[in-house]
Amino acid sequence: MPDSDSPDEETGFFFHHVAIIGIGLIGSSVALALRVNGFEGPISIADRNGEALREATELGLGTSYHTSAAKAVSGADMVFLCVPVGAMGATARAIAPALSKTAIVTDTGSVKGSVARAVSAAIPDKSRFVPGHPIAGSEQSGPRAGWATLFRHRWCILTPTEHTDPAATDVVAAMWRAMGANVEIMDIEHHDLVLSITSHLPHLIAYNIVRTAYDMETVTEQDVIKFSAGGFRDFTRIAASDPTMWRDVFLNNKTAVIETLGRFMEDLAMLQRAIRWGDGEQLFDTFQRTRNIRLSIIEAGQETAAPDFGRPRFDPRNPGRDVDQDQPHDTPHEAHHDHPVDVPDDDYDEEAF
Amino acid sequence: MPDSDSPDEETGFFFHHVAIIGIGLIGSSVALALRVNGFEGPISIADRNGEALREATELGLGTSYHTSAAKAVSGADMVFLCVPVGAMGATARAIAPALSKTAIVTDTGSVKGSVARAVSAAIPDKSRFVPGHPIAGSEQSGPRAGWATLFRHRWCILTPTEHTDPAATDVVAAMWRAMGANVEIMDIEHHDLVLSITSHLPHLIAYNIVRTAYDMETVTEQDVIKFSAGGFRDFTRIAASDPTMWRDVFLNNKTAVIETLGRFMEDLAMLQRAIRWGDGEQLFDTFQRTRNIRLSIIEAGQETAAPDFGRPRFDPRNPGRDVDQDQPHDTPHEAHHDHPVDVPDDDYDEEAF
Repeated sequence: MPDSDSPDEETGFFFHHVAIIGIGLIGSSVALALRVNGFEGPISIADRNGEALREATELGLGTSYHTSAAKAVSGADMVFLCVPVGAMGATARAIAPALSKTAIVTDTGSVKGSVARAVSAAIPDKSRFVPGHPIAGSEQSGPRAGWATLFRHRWCILTPTEHTDPAATDVVAAMWRAMGANVEIMDIEHHDLVLSITSHLPHLIAYNIVRTAYDMETVTEQDVIKFSAGGFRDFTRIAASDPTMWRDVFLNNKTAVIETLGRFMEDLAMLQRAIRWGDGEQLFDTFQRTRNIRLSIIEAGQETAAPDFGRPRFDPRNPGRDVDQDQPHDTPHEAHHDHPVDVPDDDYDEEAF
Repeated sequence: MPDSDSPDEETGFFFHHVAIIGIGLIGSSVALALRVNGFEGPISIADRNGEALREATELGLGTSYHTSAAKAVSGADMVFLCVPVGAMGATARAIAPALSKTAIVTDTGSVKGSVARAVSAAIPDKSRFVPGHPIAGSEQSGPRAGWATLFRHRWCILTPTEHTDPAATDVVAAMWRAMGANVEIMDIEHHDLVLSITSHLPHLIAYNIVRTAYDMETVTEQDVIKFSAGGFRDFTRIAASDPTMWRDVFLNNKTAVIETLGRFMEDLAMLQRAIRWGDGEQLFDTFQRTRNIRLSIIEAGQETAAPDFGRPRFDPRNPGRDVDQDQPHDTPHEAHHDHPVDVPDDDYDEEAF
């Protein structure tokens, strides 16, 4: 465990000077979360994008701002790499000569295998590199997209390499907990497989369906936009995520994504066949089964039970008013969500009525 | 247009007695929306599911409750068929002998071709059948899932058949507008194609990915649940929709769904190939293109711009508190959403830093 004499024992931040390389949604949220949770030391920020750096400065996210990552890490004892996965290696090589001997390096990339290899190979002391991945975010990008509570009640997965010093892992774990996250230690390969199904594949198919819709000659863009409330709009949110970040994820988690995608396509082909041959029983069984997993996700606190994604049912002509008050139910709408799978079976037959 | 002497001219409800057959999410929302918007006449409710009918009674959704659809339509001059698509024909046959001569029949099914054929064939006067489809809903089911403003600012598509009396279409259109919806008149075949991409396919692939995740031997259910915030949980919401309803949609919109699904699978195979061969340019181009359509959907009022689906960033241990106030930004988080596609390009190269 971290040195209990540390002056930062109370906060959980066992370091004194942070460098954040890459000030997008995640980097800026780290900066905000550190401050809100009591870290008082310097925060040096670097980004090669001048506009992002200007925004970070305006928002006051750090104490110094650099276009050079090497300058930002100088003197820092906690270094966050928050650049796209494909830029991790180059960034690690750039900071290597300027890293202080005591610095712990961690990252927030969505793929861990390729990042662990690239960063470990680049920095002078691979025992002080702790690969990490907070499972949190939104479809927005850039420093203005960050928020201080992004990581609260979310999971942060740490995947120490064979070289990582367990004490360094402890410091990084304590830091994430101090920012409100739950920490899970995981094998690198398992991380990349789990995330391929819980995150990478959902993004790929969301991007893909939006493109398929775009390309339909007989369905206009206006049709798609106007009638998107039927399910499509939920995919467009995910498909609005940062293209650079996601290109890199797929290029760097190729094996796991292709394996998971292969299974998805086989399963989809089976549903296609069931539709073609009118096999209602197989469709019903599949659709019934998938309901339960959502209940588990809600119970695990990773989602709210509010219907329709908790999307506010606001009246744009009267934005201050909660339209739910129109609802003449005795029991408030939210009262039944304890049992979202507990719905009457609408089975019917020709003799229905 | 409807008779301007009607006593209900002010409300937009040019009828006096409504029957709602099938009191699930949509049927109950229709009942609530009618009342909230000024309809004062009797509302007869029928459902073959005793539990649903009991709940509807408890909620006071109607003025009379029936297990027989024929009894419910007796005396009604506006009949809503809100049963699953596959039950429309049987329900129409059941009510046909009891329908009053002046009754207009409409429905809320997600597929229009098969429903228009089945209902038109069953009822005595096909000129008084106006097929309809409100593009609104949630993943929840049953009478308790309904709410009075479900249709507000959403589109309702009407697809009159070649036999439909335009005056009947006008009455149904006026009613939907009175409940807050926008009305679009559309060709039946076009409806079924548009909805196959904006609604049916999104549901199919959401169901499918949840099933694929379930079936992975090396990824536990706990892994999927804990790390679902990375994208997967958004799919589980859609995959929690009513299985009977969706089985019927796919069985009844087979041609359009198979066409759309075929295109989706071809496009996905192309992305799979790009991943396998490391074609970052093709991935980036696809991901970049899909961002714009989301902006259009937000501008069209069919979605909020709040990040992460407007999911409240609540603190379960302190539910009364809006955690956004933690955010030390000068500019509120929502201030940038005017330009969600206007993010800095995170392009980089080996010389990045």
